Amino acid sequence: MTDCLFCKIIEKKVPAKIAYEDDKVLAFHDISPQAPTHILLIPKKHIASINDLPEQDSAIIGYLHLIAKKLAQELKIDQSGFRLVINNGLDAGQAVSHIHWHVLGGRKLQWPPG
Amino acid sequence: MTDCLFCKIIEKKVPAKIAYEDDKVLAFHDISPQAPTHILLIPKKHIASINDLPEQDSAIIGYLHLIAKKLAQELKIDQSGFRLVINNGLDAGQAVSHIHWHVLGGRKLQWPPG
Repeated sequence: MTDCLFCKIIEKKVPAKIAYEDDKVLAFHDISPQAPTHILLIPKKHIASINDLPEQDSAIIGYLHLIAKKLAQELKIDQSGFRLVINNGLDAGQAVSHIHWHVLGGRKLQWPPG
Repeated sequence: MTDCLFCKIIEKKVPAKIAYEDDKVLAFHDISPQAPTHILLIPKKHIASINDLPEQDSAIIGYLHLIAKKLAQELKIDQSGFRLVINNGLDAGQAVSHIHWHVLGGRKLQWPPG
C-alpha cells in the first residue's frame, strides 16, 4: 500500500523507533506518546481496520496479542498494568488506515477510555 | 472459576443483557456504560488477562475480533466508528480478572484513551 504510513515504516522508508519486529508484526514507539510507555503494534500485512479484517487473517490477531504479552514483559509494564486500544473509524479517531494496537502503560490510566 | 463474575454470567447464574452468544464467546452490555453503545466481549474460556494468555488459546482472540466486527455491524457503529479497549492489571483499572474487550461507540471518543 504505497500511501500507507505504517507500510512505509514496515518497509523502512519512514523512520520509527522500533521496539519489536518479526516476519509478521512490528512494534514501534508512538511519536505522540500519551503515557510513559506508548507503543504501536501492527501486523505487517496491510489490513485497514477491524471492519476490513478477513476471516482468514484472524490468526495474526491472536498472534499479535501473544506479542503484546511479551512486549509488556520486556517493557516492564506487565505487572503494573497496561491498556490495549484499537481505534476503528472516525468516532474513535483512527488516524492511520492500517490496523494498529496502542499499548499504553507506565501511569495510572483513567476511565472512561476517551 | 467459581469466584469469577464473568464465568457466572456465562453460566447464567448472574443476569446480563446479552448482545451475542455462541459456543466460544459472549457479549453483553456494560452495566456502567461509558458511551451510547458499550458492550463487553469475552471468551467463554476463563483467561485472567493478556498476561495469562496461553499460546494455544491465541486463536480464540482472533475469532473474538471477527465477532467484534460482526457486532459493530449489528449495533450500527461500524461506519461511525468504535474503540476496542482491553485493561490489563492495576494501572489500567482491570475490574474483573477474566479477559474482556470493551466495545465503545455511538459518540466521539476522546484522546488520550484514559
